[in-house]
Amino acid sequence: MSRLLWQKAGVTTDAEVMRFLAGDDVILDRELFPFDIRATAAHAQGLALRGLLASNDAEAIVAALQDLDAEWSRGTFVLDDRFEDGHSAIESYLTERLGEVGGRVHLGRSRNDQVLVATRLYMIHALDTLRATLTQSARAALDRARRDEMAPMPGYTHLQRAVPSTVGLWMASFAESFTETAELVAMTRRWIDACPLGTAAGYGVNLPLPRQQVSETLGFARIVINPMAAQASRGKHELQVLAAMWQAMQDIRRLAWDLSIFSTAEFDFVRMPPETVTGSSIMPNKKNPDLAELLRASCAVVGGAMTELQQVLSLPSGYHRDLQLTKAPLVRSVRVTCDAIRLVPDLLRRTEFKLENMRRAIDGTMMATDRAVDLAASGMSFRDAYRQVGDSLDSLTSAEPEESVTARVSPGACADLRLSEIESRIAALAAE
Amino acid sequence: MSRLLWQKAGVTTDAEVMRFLAGDDVILDRELFPFDIRATAAHAQGLALRGLLASNDAEAIVAALQDLDAEWSRGTFVLDDRFEDGHSAIESYLTERLGEVGGRVHLGRSRNDQVLVATRLYMIHALDTLRATLTQSARAALDRARRDEMAPMPGYTHLQRAVPSTVGLWMASFAESFTETAELVAMTRRWIDACPLGTAAGYGVNLPLPRQQVSETLGFARIVINPMAAQASRGKHELQVLAAMWQAMQDIRRLAWDLSIFSTAEFDFVRMPPETVTGSSIMPNKKNPDLAELLRASCAVVGGAMTELQQVLSLPSGYHRDLQLTKAPLVRSVRVTCDAIRLVPDLLRRTEFKLENMRRAIDGTMMATDRAVDLAASGMSFRDAYRQVGDSLDSLTSAEPEESVTARVSPGACADLRLSEIESRIAALAAE
Amino acid sequence: MSRLLWQKAGVTTDAEVMRFLAGDDVILDRELFPFDIRATAAHAQGLALRGLLASNDAEAIVAALQDLDAEWSRGTFVLDDRFEDGHSAIESYLTERLGEVGGRVHLGRSRNDQVLVATRLYMIHALDTLRATLTQSARAALDRARRDEMAPMPGYTHLQRAVPSTVGLWMASFAESFTETAELVAMTRRWIDACPLGTAAGYGVNLPLPRQQVSETLGFARIVINPMAAQASRGKHELQVLAAMWQAMQDIRRLAWDLSIFSTAEFDFVRMPPETVTGSSIMPNKKNPDLAELLRASCAVVGGAMTELQQVLSLPSGYHRDLQLTKAPLVRSVRVTCDAIRLVPDLLRRTEFKLENMRRAIDGTMMATDRAVDLAASGMSFRDAYRQVGDSLDSLTSAEPEESVTARVSPGACADLRLSEIESRIAALAAE
Amino acid sequence: MSRLLWQKAGVTTDAEVMRFLAGDDVILDRELFPFDIRATAAHAQGLALRGLLASNDAEAIVAALQDLDAEWSRGTFVLDDRFEDGHSAIESYLTERLGEVGGRVHLGRSRNDQVLVATRLYMIHALDTLRATLTQSARAALDRARRDEMAPMPGYTHLQRAVPSTVGLWMASFAESFTETAELVAMTRRWIDACPLGTAAGYGVNLPLPRQQVSETLGFARIVINPMAAQASRGKHELQVLAAMWQAMQDIRRLAWDLSIFSTAEFDFVRMPPETVTGSSIMPNKKNPDLAELLRASCAVVGGAMTELQQVLSLPSGYHRDLQLTKAPLVRSVRVTCDAIRLVPDLLRRTEFKLENMRRAIDGTMMATDRAVDLAASGMSFRDAYRQVGDSLDSLTSAEPEESVTARVSPGACADLRLSEIESRIAALAAE
Repeated sequence: MSRLLWQKAGVTTDAEVMRFLAGDDVILDRELFPFDIRATAAHAQGLALRGLLASNDAEAIVAALQDLDAEWSRGTFVLDDRFEDGHSAIESYLTERLGEVGGRVHLGRSRNDQVLVATRLYMIHALDTLRATLTQSARAALDRARRDEMAPMPGYTHLQRAVPSTVGLWMASFAESFTETAELVAMTRRWIDACPLGTAAGYGVNLPLPRQQVSETLGFARIVINPMAAQASRGKHELQVLAAMWQAMQDIRRLAWDLSIFSTAEFDFVRMPPETVTGSSIMPNKKNPDLAELLRASCAVVGGAMTELQQVLSLPSGYHRDLQLTKAPLVRSVRVTCDAIRLVPDLLRRTEFKLENMRRAIDGTMMATDRAVDLAASGMSFRDAYRQVGDSLDSLTSAEPEESVTARVSPGACADLRLSEIESRIAALAAE
Repeated sequence: MSRLLWQKAGVTTDAEVMRFLAGDDVILDRELFPFDIRATAAHAQGLALRGLLASNDAEAIVAALQDLDAEWSRGTFVLDDRFEDGHSAIESYLTERLGEVGGRVHLGRSRNDQVLVATRLYMIHALDTLRATLTQSARAALDRARRDEMAPMPGYTHLQRAVPSTVGLWMASFAESFTETAELVAMTRRWIDACPLGTAAGYGVNLPLPRQQVSETLGFARIVINPMAAQASRGKHELQVLAAMWQAMQDIRRLAWDLSIFSTAEFDFVRMPPETVTGSSIMPNKKNPDLAELLRASCAVVGGAMTELQQVLSLPSGYHRDLQLTKAPLVRSVRVTCDAIRLVPDLLRRTEFKLENMRRAIDGTMMATDRAVDLAASGMSFRDAYRQVGDSLDSLTSAEPEESVTARVSPGACADLRLSEIESRIAALAAE
Repeated sequence: MSRLLWQKAGVTTDAEVMRFLAGDDVILDRELFPFDIRATAAHAQGLALRGLLASNDAEAIVAALQDLDAEWSRGTFVLDDRFEDGHSAIESYLTERLGEVGGRVHLGRSRNDQVLVATRLYMIHALDTLRATLTQSARAALDRARRDEMAPMPGYTHLQRAVPSTVGLWMASFAESFTETAELVAMTRRWIDACPLGTAAGYGVNLPLPRQQVSETLGFARIVINPMAAQASRGKHELQVLAAMWQAMQDIRRLAWDLSIFSTAEFDFVRMPPETVTGSSIMPNKKNPDLAELLRASCAVVGGAMTELQQVLSLPSGYHRDLQLTKAPLVRSVRVTCDAIRLVPDLLRRTEFKLENMRRAIDGTMMATDRAVDLAASGMSFRDAYRQVGDSLDSLTSAEPEESVTARVSPGACADLRLSEIESRIAALAAE
Repeated sequence: MSRLLWQKAGVTTDAEVMRFLAGDDVILDRELFPFDIRATAAHAQGLALRGLLASNDAEAIVAALQDLDAEWSRGTFVLDDRFEDGHSAIESYLTERLGEVGGRVHLGRSRNDQVLVATRLYMIHALDTLRATLTQSARAALDRARRDEMAPMPGYTHLQRAVPSTVGLWMASFAESFTETAELVAMTRRWIDACPLGTAAGYGVNLPLPRQQVSETLGFARIVINPMAAQASRGKHELQVLAAMWQAMQDIRRLAWDLSIFSTAEFDFVRMPPETVTGSSIMPNKKNPDLAELLRASCAVVGGAMTELQQVLSLPSGYHRDLQLTKAPLVRSVRVTCDAIRLVPDLLRRTEFKLENMRRAIDGTMMATDRAVDLAASGMSFRDAYRQVGDSLDSLTSAEPEESVTARVSPGACADLRLSEIESRIAALAAE
């Protein structure tokens, strides 16, 4: 129960207002902190380049920031509510270490462009991580497609048995979906790859900042030109990053639904790894596919965060404190997406496919479409062929699934999966 | 940066899976913990009532739970990731204190109905808190309406000056909006006021649990009858609680927009209390209405949480682990709503209204509607009156706002605000 | 393809701007039209009551409006883009019929309160319709619960077989869910049951309008007091109406998921009525549960509409043209919800339950929980009982589901469904 | 009022079920129809290429489809509820014209891949249209930036006056935002540029379809390889298309907020073109910025549609009828986005900027940041400079905005707008 919930309402203190203004900002800034440190160093170097900061001061600042980064990584510097936010923590550290010199790094920048650049570096890092993990997931799916490439299983539409299909086709669909999503992730990364540092509070400053050089130091492809456009990108860029992450979570949601349904006693097509299933607190007989279910549900976190972001952003030009609330949905989504997708390659590798059960679930009527196509290919109109086969479904008593899937020769179908084409796309992504 | 984000992807450990399954659940359970303790005690008493637990065992359990509650309130019992969740923490505490007897409380219940009942008590508590704070906000608005009841200010539509209005009308609109929202909150509380405890994992148990008595012990108005319906209410009830909270945040969003715009240099109608405005890191001249802006933006948190919940709930009957993800959006929304609305009464009380500036902003053309209505009331068709006044706008050079607002006699309008009717509704809510 | 999509961009005409401003407004107004007519008549009578309109003029206007309503019902008056919106159509009709007298009805009202009152009457009508249909759905579910009250079927959690359950329990869960939702619908109706007519453009008018009497004529329980609060309710009330409708769609979504999964070849528990399943364009063997699937998906329409509404409403006090966009999500949601829920009673009545298949799906290990509870009820700690039964699952070879469900005596469970309590609640709703 | 809403509930007819299943599908298909015709022709040519259709039959089919397309464009072929959907309309037309030959075109395809390919062509066309209009909007903003490049206006943060800025900076921010959005639109188009035709109902067919050639005929860059991945892309691709459109609407929302606030009597910075403002039904003195307000609100339509889509897509692999409901949110969003953005270039071109009022709104304290930066650049720590200037704000009595903005030399700021760089990016997009 939130402390505030218990308090006497109606008379507020300054402390309560302060707490509301701060929110979880400093905690969220833990995600951005290493990037804020990095960007601060680049800004110091930029100031020195223009003679706005003495070279030795800049060097001292950069060195102190490297120490801070190391302390942070080791866990000896803790970012907590002793500080208002990550920016204040950096300022405090530098001033404590370097005295008045530490304060010089603030010349020509505002917390506005500081948070913009840290967030952008954070998003780029998250997208790179996601691309790598999606690529591994695609590869894991491709491996499973190869392992049981022609093993028959029912193909479903509307969850109803439709036509014979294969494990190869099923798994290759995830290989292609993950690959395609990774391509969107890579595109999105390129789209946001522009440095906002040096735009100050949205109107630039009366200093000849070397924005291009600072941008290069930080590894950006280009600068955001217009300071007001930089402000306006806050939340907008986040939204597209989330849109890309949502695609990954949607791929996972489909996979999780398949595994959830295929692991019922009634289907009994798969057995998930033991560490991904759990027992019940009351029912001794249960083994529940908890991981699959939580993966499935996690897509909603990103979807909700997108709505949250969109609602925040109904604002005129210029910075508004509202924008502080873009951080939480971003961080929440990045975490859940990266945490979820990490678990996918192993889940794919280690889930057992019960090939006999899959094969047994293919019945004779599932050959009907093949038959109708055969008739139509030899000259009958498809509508007539469809009707003729439909009228004699009872005669389709025996299924020869191998025969059916071997004949499925349209490009991409069971007999022509084109796994190497998918593999090439994966390789291209990995090389990026 | 999330630790997981940095790790080598593609090979997962059991620990990582465990961490993903646990999520923030134990942290979120801090909100539910006192309610879980309370419901556990009621369950023990219910078991004793049916002879399923020895009376002295039940007494020992209840006493231990009271101790736990006290330790929790004092902060000497900490709920953290030593435990999987709040339920495990209670179990662990009882077993440590009472040995095997501590485990007896689990007879006839499941974690499913345990979390359902704790969540429902939590929601009821949150709604009661919200109703109280909304009532205080309504009163604060009513007080402001009374203080400057007939002070003229422009009435805007489309943000364009429309007709003379009053501070009384403006403030009374918030009194009525908050009251109406509090009425919805009270309705929502009654709607969810049903005890799910004793429905086990969604199918009841083979024990004659005294569900009605347990429900009364916990202060519920009735029981949820059907165990599957109890499961199906998870997330659904939360959604309606959030819908009610969203209404509060929407009222606040409107207020915050008004204050944001009225505090611009161009309007200059209000000055917010000093603790609610902050400076800029780069611009020495700035005083920014940060509190109003964060209040405005916070509405999005609840909106996003509603979408998140809705997306989780696309599921067949029965419990699914997906439902774990209903907790975070609920807790996030309850916290932000209760934290936000708490600050409203003081903000209303302490914001200065610049009455002279408001009055000065009323120009002569704003009398046009009154004139047209006068003409039409004396027999002209309204369209003709409208046209005649519209053609002679230039002649409306002087505004007599007091005259205009005094003549606005339609019920609820400036000259007949009916503040006592609103006050009666507030009083009825406070008495509930 | 939208016409505009094809046009040369970049140079717009007044006509295009007009078209954008109008949007689909006049089409959407078809839903509101009969209510707008009714409210216009009440306004005319109110004006007459205050001597602001001659009695015979008021009578002529009311009579003309009755004719218009009749023509509208018969389909001889068509509302299309000859008119800007429904209000203009009424005005045009009255003026054509009554000349200058027809224009007198506009005294003292604005299109703002006109659309508010028509929308509110429309929402009340929709909620009444929904309550009635939900009540019928609850009854249909209750009837199915009675028909096969003790017929065993597996109880699932996580889609895994958990414990024996009954068709009675399953169906009664929908009876209770629909009833509870109908109770929320009734509450929501009471919440919005207030007349906004007479608040003009948000600031009242300089006329002593008999708002209370007009409100009673229209059947409202009370008036909205404050004109600015009336404006502020636009979209807010709609959101709560949609929240209530969403609950209905969520009940249906759960039912649709159950039917979708239970109608797979693998479960084979139900057969839906033939008019609700369709064939495939390419697969002669398919019978697809299209109705269940579209019912399931339709919940998303309401969810999306809620987000849409919420995003529109980030605005300061007073009317803004933005609010025109509250109509489409409201109308879209009302239609889909009312259309969907109408189909539920018959779907429930006419779906065949394959009782033998259901019973056969209950295996011996599903008795484990009963056994563990038995052991614990006779004195063993539940954890020990759980472990003992868990270790000997193999011995649970034969299921006696009838025995199990007959022993499930906790209130609401299979052996004590309390259908008459649910029935009483349904009856209370129907009587409202 | 929906017809169904009035009907007696509880007993449904086959016709009602049919109507619910059909929904507005055939109306929505009007958007997809020309693309469906085009893809059908390509499929016929593909069949002929493989000898699965006689060449002269293929030619007859293609010729008939060209006629249909022409009739459709002229409006002599009407798509309405005589047909179940667009596909049936094409089939009916071909059969009527060509008899049994007309039916041959259905060999080897399903309505599933037919709707996939038509939707994808529709989305590509919409994205191309949007890119073109965004480019024109960017150019219009750039022209406005050039026209008053150095004209001073206040720069706001938190809607509070912050520092002197220029019309050039303000307008250039839209030029860059629109350009960046257009770049995302172009990326999104490339991402979806893959042909799903030939994947049938998600499992391919037993025919050697020339998918690569058909894809080239239709102008796609590549084929979707895996048939199940093709199915899984439905709704997912739509979501990214909407995400790109949302960015455009968000740019417009920012512009509309600026215009809304800048056109108040209190700011009085802009006057929008007369055809974009409207009067009031009750207030003769009003001129309301309706177009700006509707543009602002329209962003919500796309946001809501995104949520709607996401909620539909919680499904296992394979086609489900749920996916029919992906069409409406797509079409609704495409229409509103394309209709809205079309109006932007003229709105930008024709809005009058009141340069004198803008300049007058810059007061002396707005020079504070420049002063503090000057002091810090000459060696003082920024914190000290900030404090010193902050303490002497009263001395900043006169503003020399030209001096201030001329000194704002950081790249992208008022004195270095880099309009030609933005122009180059616009030119690159236009050339794409």
